[in-house]
Amino acid sequence: MRVGIIGAGQLGRMLALAGYPLGIQTRFLDPNANGSGGQVGPVVVGEIDDAARIDALARQVDVVTFDIENVPVDTLRAGTADSIVRPPPEALSIAQDRLNEKQLFGRLNIPAAPYMPIASLGDLERAPDALGWPIVLKARRLGYDGRGQRLVQSAAELEVAWRELGRVPSLAEGWVDFERELSLIAVRGSDGATAFYPLAENVHVDGILHTTTAPYQDERTQSRAEDYLALMLAELDYCGVLTVEFFLADGELMANEIAPRVHNSGHWTIEGAQTSQFENHMRAIVGLPLGGTSPTGFSFMLNLIGELPDRERLLKIAGLHLHDYGKTPRPKRKIGHCTLVTATEEERSVRADELIAVAGIP
Amino acid sequence: MRVGIIGAGQLGRMLALAGYPLGIQTRFLDPNANGSGGQVGPVVVGEIDDAARIDALARQVDVVTFDIENVPVDTLRAGTADSIVRPPPEALSIAQDRLNEKQLFGRLNIPAAPYMPIASLGDLERAPDALGWPIVLKARRLGYDGRGQRLVQSAAELEVAWRELGRVPSLAEGWVDFERELSLIAVRGSDGATAFYPLAENVHVDGILHTTTAPYQDERTQSRAEDYLALMLAELDYCGVLTVEFFLADGELMANEIAPRVHNSGHWTIEGAQTSQFENHMRAIVGLPLGGTSPTGFSFMLNLIGELPDRERLLKIAGLHLHDYGKTPRPKRKIGHCTLVTATEEERSVRADELIAVAGIP
Repeated sequence: MRVGIIGAGQLGRMLALAGYPLGIQTRFLDPNANGSGGQVGPVVVGEIDDAARIDALARQVDVVTFDIENVPVDTLRAGTADSIVRPPPEALSIAQDRLNEKQLFGRLNIPAAPYMPIASLGDLERAPDALGWPIVLKARRLGYDGRGQRLVQSAAELEVAWRELGRVPSLAEGWVDFERELSLIAVRGSDGATAFYPLAENVHVDGILHTTTAPYQDERTQSRAEDYLALMLAELDYCGVLTVEFFLADGELMANEIAPRVHNSGHWTIEGAQTSQFENHMRAIVGLPLGGTSPTGFSFMLNLIGELPDRERLLKIAGLHLHDYGKTPRPKRKIGHCTLVTATEEERSVRADELIAVAGIP
Repeated sequence: MRVGIIGAGQLGRMLALAGYPLGIQTRFLDPNANGSGGQVGPVVVGEIDDAARIDALARQVDVVTFDIENVPVDTLRAGTADSIVRPPPEALSIAQDRLNEKQLFGRLNIPAAPYMPIASLGDLERAPDALGWPIVLKARRLGYDGRGQRLVQSAAELEVAWRELGRVPSLAEGWVDFERELSLIAVRGSDGATAFYPLAENVHVDGILHTTTAPYQDERTQSRAEDYLALMLAELDYCGVLTVEFFLADGELMANEIAPRVHNSGHWTIEGAQTSQFENHMRAIVGLPLGGTSPTGFSFMLNLIGELPDRERLLKIAGLHLHDYGKTPRPKRKIGHCTLVTATEEERSVRADELIAVAGIP
């Protein structure tokens, strides 16, 4: 079985590494032959928005997937006309546009923050009347890791925010005073079989995921989140891993965004769940049975951002699992992560403190 | 950090896969560029007994190791004159010759089966007087997976056994009526820090490892085995993973053979221990701190030999971890393994039965 992955970042790298034991050979499409993914598998060198190169990849494999959301959907469809693409390109086109996301949530009656589509400064100036203060201005496309967002706290800031975001089609979102950020990862097989991981709690710093703690144990919330994802999986006739980020506000979930792929908030599953999100994505897209998603302990994941802390000091922490992505250090760049899995919550908290003392806060 | 592995079989493959998350890049030396290891990392194509090719590998990496015991030690030394080799070639030269092994056990007062060196048919004919019946005739060199051994039960069979083994320098070993076969895996860092995995119980079929069940829980036996390995690690100034196979006879350990490398009876550690034998070997040889060796549950490992059972049926077994080595099926060839890790011994036994029902007995 051969899987083609568009994009060879750390997600592709971890997908490839999860695929090998299953007997799955991976090929990447990426402009960089020696990047994070290219260090662990062969690369078809090319741009991810070049239909001819996507086609060159697709012809070498049985199924095409992606580790990046920026692949233009029309190009993807053109490059894979005769191929199986999983997850479905439709899911990608929804995730690429915040308006599509909001409309999906609305169509399925999944609670989300109130919003207004913004096409002009005039639209934006009218938004606070409906949404109150503050508002969050979010570009509809190409936003991730906190990019493409501005918090606007007064009328005086509206014009600056509009200009800074590039006067692009956007959404204005009402402020949600959330208690927590949670995410749920689901996987759906090609036969429709579905499995859910436990909810995970995420902490962002400067818009970039900093830590994930899992499982987040609350049966009612877990069950509600699963219901929401089940609706989306069915609506999209989905295959593979789907991640949805939620706010928890007044004890209720509000969908924030979807990622039609393995997700940073699921990295803990490599050691902390019976089957990792990476292995389950690979199993799903090649048509193999899904693996168990139950947690094996109490997990804590810390992203390594910008620069790798001293490797020896990290690895001296009892039970620490290091994941070095093989990337060149650069400010705000995710270059690795660490996971701890412990038998008790207390132990997790002690070890997490040790880890933060070594790795620092980005 | 770059590690060169002489040999690109499944052990090299799993070493490379364990190295990537640590930020270790692997290169292999192997005649086959697309074999089990070559599918997951670059290969310097060449014979493993060619000093010039070993040298070519060594020049590309920081430390050289091996996944195979057949590397001629003089060739290895010649090809790595300016390089770091771990484990030490001395350990390899002991493991390559059963007489050296026996002498090591003797020197360290580690119990082992009684034996006589055999250089001629005359030697062999005298052996039963000292050792009794039956005896096991074992070629001193190049024996593994049951090859190079003959059970001899009567005087009439002596000449046939001697001929069939090729009239090569051998050992005659007295028969040990053992209750169990156990193995202990140790790892020693470049700073002398040492860690031991729990004992594992092995079942061989036709001389080839069939199943491993771990941990084998008996404090006294564990402690004695650790004492024996500690003696060997110190004697050899060892670095990396060392495996020793034991017989348990009348409740006492008798050393059978040593392997200066990761070992088939330690494959369960990938999912069944805090840190796998593969990761710990890599950590040790590049000078990183060792990882924890405690078990995460009750493990059962089954080798897949000759032919891969139906992948779907295997992966439908709850909690099953498949390791497909990417090798061409061939009778008696190890082409993969499966591991189950469960929370209770009872559950392990139920799941192991399920697995055996699907995979069969080789």
